[in-house]
Amino acid sequence: MKASVYAIYRQPYFYQSLSLSLSLLISFVKLLPIMTTTNSHVITCKGIVSWGKGEPLKVEEIQVEPPKSNEVRVKMLYASVCRTDLLFANGFPIPAFPRVMGHEGVGVVESFGEGVTGLREGDLVIPAYIAECKTCETCMSEKTNLCLKYPLSYNGLMLDGSSRMSIRGQTAYHAFSCSTWCQYLVINVNFLIKIDPKTPLPDASFLSCGFSIGYGATWKEAMVKNGSSVAVFGLGAVGLGAIKGAKSHGAIKVIGIDNNPMKAAKGRAFGMTDFINPEESDKSIAELVKDLTAGMGVDYSFECTGVPPLINQAIQSTKLGTGKIIQMGVEEPNVNINIIGLLVGRTLKGSIFGGLKAKTDLPIIYSKCKNREIQLDELLSHEIKLEDVDSF
Amino acid sequence: MKASVYAIYRQPYFYQSLSLSLSLLISFVKLLPIMTTTNSHVITCKGIVSWGKGEPLKVEEIQVEPPKSNEVRVKMLYASVCRTDLLFANGFPIPAFPRVMGHEGVGVVESFGEGVTGLREGDLVIPAYIAECKTCETCMSEKTNLCLKYPLSYNGLMLDGSSRMSIRGQTAYHAFSCSTWCQYLVINVNFLIKIDPKTPLPDASFLSCGFSIGYGATWKEAMVKNGSSVAVFGLGAVGLGAIKGAKSHGAIKVIGIDNNPMKAAKGRAFGMTDFINPEESDKSIAELVKDLTAGMGVDYSFECTGVPPLINQAIQSTKLGTGKIIQMGVEEPNVNINIIGLLVGRTLKGSIFGGLKAKTDLPIIYSKCKNREIQLDELLSHEIKLEDVDSF
Repeated sequence: MKASVYAIYRQPYFYQSLSLSLSLLISFVKLLPIMTTTNSHVITCKGIVSWGKGEPLKVEEIQVEPPKSNEVRVKMLYASVCRTDLLFANGFPIPAFPRVMGHEGVGVVESFGEGVTGLREGDLVIPAYIAECKTCETCMSEKTNLCLKYPLSYNGLMLDGSSRMSIRGQTAYHAFSCSTWCQYLVINVNFLIKIDPKTPLPDASFLSCGFSIGYGATWKEAMVKNGSSVAVFGLGAVGLGAIKGAKSHGAIKVIGIDNNPMKAAKGRAFGMTDFINPEESDKSIAELVKDLTAGMGVDYSFECTGVPPLINQAIQSTKLGTGKIIQMGVEEPNVNINIIGLLVGRTLKGSIFGGLKAKTDLPIIYSKCKNREIQLDELLSHEIKLEDVDSF
Repeated sequence: MKASVYAIYRQPYFYQSLSLSLSLLISFVKLLPIMTTTNSHVITCKGIVSWGKGEPLKVEEIQVEPPKSNEVRVKMLYASVCRTDLLFANGFPIPAFPRVMGHEGVGVVESFGEGVTGLREGDLVIPAYIAECKTCETCMSEKTNLCLKYPLSYNGLMLDGSSRMSIRGQTAYHAFSCSTWCQYLVINVNFLIKIDPKTPLPDASFLSCGFSIGYGATWKEAMVKNGSSVAVFGLGAVGLGAIKGAKSHGAIKVIGIDNNPMKAAKGRAFGMTDFINPEESDKSIAELVKDLTAGMGVDYSFECTGVPPLINQAIQSTKLGTGKIIQMGVEEPNVNINIIGLLVGRTLKGSIFGGLKAKTDLPIIYSKCKNREIQLDELLSHEIKLEDVDSF
């Protein structure tokens, strides 16, 4: 296992699959538990690291400290790739390097610090980037999933302002509250979700972010109504989750939009009724959506790319007066919005993690997966072991 | 009454009062019913006309045709000034000139064409720019006020694609479906609202647009909850309406924001609890709002200016996860929005006419005015007769 492990990220396929509205299948990286040394409770293991904006990712030996109070050390079993990982590698939200990558994955509890209750060694867990303390004003509210006590972590550090990871003595930063592309990670227990041990591991990893975001956005943010119409922009994992969620909540017209024709089959597997490839027409996407909806537009747009022109198309694709657009992706912080498109009664709602409360709602999605109401077979394109990356 | 009547619009006071977040008191123009000639049912009368972007407004003799089927000719009694009039004079939404200005006002039915029912000559009426057919999908819906059958008119023409006004033989365009700064206008009956004849005329004019928009936005769009907190950006008629509406619906913290210190007293007259003059601090407005709300931000922002940086401040001023921003103003069509400010669970909703259904909801506001629940005395800064404009 050499530094060239990052070759998986240089494969054209991966960049293509992660780009723009082409964020379809997140490749799957199996991180074998090859603990190389254990010393005074510090574990030395392998992880994938970003050293700076534009620099290639590298596999490094990482020292992972034992968990402190209210923290859990997790041995990762599977991790997956999300488009936001690319943003991290490009210095988002702040250029904190070296950054140990990854925020999707599943693992087991290896050890935990004081104050942690309800967990045992070996419990199957999801390291999340959304916490749920269940006591603050917003956790007590039905309206939002953004815990006030344990907010989204942008700075890559634990709550005490330090990191539990280092590389050759140099502090390494977490990705959000996670860093799932590492064999071990330490996380505050409020960000950790215990799940049914019978959940298939690849599914467990996929549901830790992308697919659940899209599904959650239809359920918690838009509250898609029976008989409604929906447009989904970008058929990556988020978009496919939105298609599945819209269909599950009774949408009868589910239009998928992607400029990769291969996404049509993927979309249909999750319930898409119509497919638009914008490159096959001179019309705008909004015009094409209106052509499919008797000129009215859709009730809801789910914008999963963050690409500014697509955000405006997502707005324009909805019905005058009542159209609701759920914005999930971000490509750049400042977006030029045609405000008149919004003024005519439309609603643009931003969403983190699809509005899902991490501990309350995510297990519900996992249970739908376990009972095969949600089937993720179509989502898995590649599965590789970390030590096999060289030969991939 | 000479062309110099437009001097009222050149008074520095008026430009100041109409600018930016300073859109406080809309001056009041009394249009006396000086019908100069009546010829074959065409009425020749006076009206204020915009001849082109940047050109001074002029009083012109206008020929107003008789109403056709489903149309009503209205003799205007009072009209008032709204910031959107400035946009019209600058070629918004399309540069259709000459444009007979004005979209706020009150008048009486002078005559009507075939198919008009429920109206008599002399009925007190409001020419509106929002219709309500009460039969289309959206009129039947509780969610929106944007009639599908009779949409907002941008092109300045009647539904049959022609105008009922001309100036020396040249077609003159309506302002929306109105043109209230004219002694007579013709309007489709679906845009006409019959109101209680005992409504004070100045109040009737003010309530035909600005103040009602702000009030409606708190009532119909945000559905302001008891005990909530509110920030209002721009204390013109719209903003003062939002303050009154928020207070009436139980808001306990109502923060008014304007860079004109004279607005503080106006805001308090309508129920404002705190005033922010951004020019008196180096902090951002959002920081100042958070200082007044224990760091949390407000539940709702009402953005009444359309000024792009203020839209972003209105977003940032609301609570993470649940903040709702109602956008009413427009200054330029494309606005650079910090999308991350929205992504953290906030909702930006555009609104036309404050979400009020013209025939169903506006009369309710008029009744609140009649019973003095809404008192508009503070809104009237100037009242002039058209023939006295020269000496103003």
